[in-house]
Amino acid sequence: MQAALAAAAREIEAALDSHLPLPDGPERRVVEAMRYAALDGGKRLRPFLVLQSAALFSVSHSSALRAACAVEMVHCYSLVHDDLPAMDDDDTRRGKATTHRKFDEATAILAGDALLTRAFEILARPATHGDAQVRAELVLALAEASGAQGMVGGQMLDLIAEKATLDLGEITRLQRLKTGAIIAFAAEAGAILGKAAPQARQALHAYAHDLGLAFQIADDLLDVEGTAAEVGKKTGKDAARGKATFVWLLGVERARAQARLLAEQAAKHLDLFAGKADLLAEVARWVVDRRS
Amino acid sequence: MQAALAAAAREIEAALDSHLPLPDGPERRVVEAMRYAALDGGKRLRPFLVLQSAALFSVSHSSALRAACAVEMVHCYSLVHDDLPAMDDDDTRRGKATTHRKFDEATAILAGDALLTRAFEILARPATHGDAQVRAELVLALAEASGAQGMVGGQMLDLIAEKATLDLGEITRLQRLKTGAIIAFAAEAGAILGKAAPQARQALHAYAHDLGLAFQIADDLLDVEGTAAEVGKKTGKDAARGKATFVWLLGVERARAQARLLAEQAAKHLDLFAGKADLLAEVARWVVDRRS
Repeated sequence: MQAALAAAAREIEAALDSHLPLPDGPERRVVEAMRYAALDGGKRLRPFLVLQSAALFSVSHSSALRAACAVEMVHCYSLVHDDLPAMDDDDTRRGKATTHRKFDEATAILAGDALLTRAFEILARPATHGDAQVRAELVLALAEASGAQGMVGGQMLDLIAEKATLDLGEITRLQRLKTGAIIAFAAEAGAILGKAAPQARQALHAYAHDLGLAFQIADDLLDVEGTAAEVGKKTGKDAARGKATFVWLLGVERARAQARLLAEQAAKHLDLFAGKADLLAEVARWVVDRRS
Repeated sequence: MQAALAAAAREIEAALDSHLPLPDGPERRVVEAMRYAALDGGKRLRPFLVLQSAALFSVSHSSALRAACAVEMVHCYSLVHDDLPAMDDDDTRRGKATTHRKFDEATAILAGDALLTRAFEILARPATHGDAQVRAELVLALAEASGAQGMVGGQMLDLIAEKATLDLGEITRLQRLKTGAIIAFAAEAGAILGKAAPQARQALHAYAHDLGLAFQIADDLLDVEGTAAEVGKKTGKDAARGKATFVWLLGVERARAQARLLAEQAAKHLDLFAGKADLLAEVARWVVDRRS
């Protein structure tokens, strides 16, 4: 599974590179920042989910790769904006300077805006799928997952959470919006591309739903237990900010048990695919025990 | 024409309101900021262009209104981000506090992100047009107009221009990207919705191209000649920043003459529509002589 993940990451890297060509004029600076934010980094978990779910429905690889790039661009834009001084004010990300540190704040804001826009541009182009109905559905689903009722709403809750004490239900809702919605889109994208039966799409949604929470709990655990060198960004931040997390509420042991339970639950939703989705099941288990 | 513009603005206001319902949870704060940024303001020139161009091709009014709202949301998002301290650092806009002043920087960044996302969501929904091909084409054209090769690229150039001296060709290119691309999309949206012949779409593109530049020169003139009370934002900013503008390069009289010439040229491109596009021609002339 880790070899498959690494192979997918290399493929995504090359595809992202081709979707972000440098223009000639002085506005190339914003594209340089987009490339800095999108290339050379990350586990590429979301694009992997797109590629794997697409493979379940015999979707053409080039279609799946385009949708995978779109999801990753939205993810990268969200990191650029979340790292800004007005938001989380982070200096490092994926082991290098954050985009506003490397360039400047204005360029980072614009690069984020342009990555989000490019994601929709890629999905809407005929090359993504011969059926315009599929392209429009991808755009709609990605917009719902990333907007005020999805990822952006979750980030708003996260900012509010720094000044409030959330209970387990509220944190779950926050994470479902902030990271879960995009992960769910990634897993469902293959079903949309393959015009899969509603049942199959729902199974992938349920899988991603549990996977997303497991992923977030694992992230909280890494913030407590990992070192900056391993994780590639500053750790211990949540506690320093007095931020309520799964780990803070449940303790390390119960949080880890809960993450493992969620990973098993996620895998269970894939029974429908009768062994064809084993890599997706494996990635759910890996997510919980990863060291970075 | 001004009555038609005012009537369209009222309609757009109501439609934007219905596209931005307040949710129940604490994340409503970001939607409050979106509403603050999008409602109650502006001439609504871009949505007017959508509605008028759509009327040329007998597009259903509800389709046109949805596309008009999408364009206006992109415009409003760009104003929210451009006003941020890291960008133009403006305190007032449309006669009231800018979004980051009214809320805070983080909320303003998120509200801008969510307005951009909502625009694509609206276009992609089946209610916008029965033909998915049209919806995908609208998404693609709006993304091209607003991304790194359009509006965001123009804003990048604008930031660079504050530290450089641009010549007339460079300023023209900057404005073509920064304001022209979205204005061109607005005028072409009706042709996309109405599946118009390429010739008609090209005529609207050429019209919008000249209109966009005329509009920008008029804006520069207002910055020099208008008062803050009339214009609704601080004036004299360009000169204070030593920013190269059309007026700075050409002088007030030649700039005004150039704007009027462009408005006439814009109107000329509409001859193809044999009188059916008179309101569009009139709006080009009005744009040059407006006082705010």
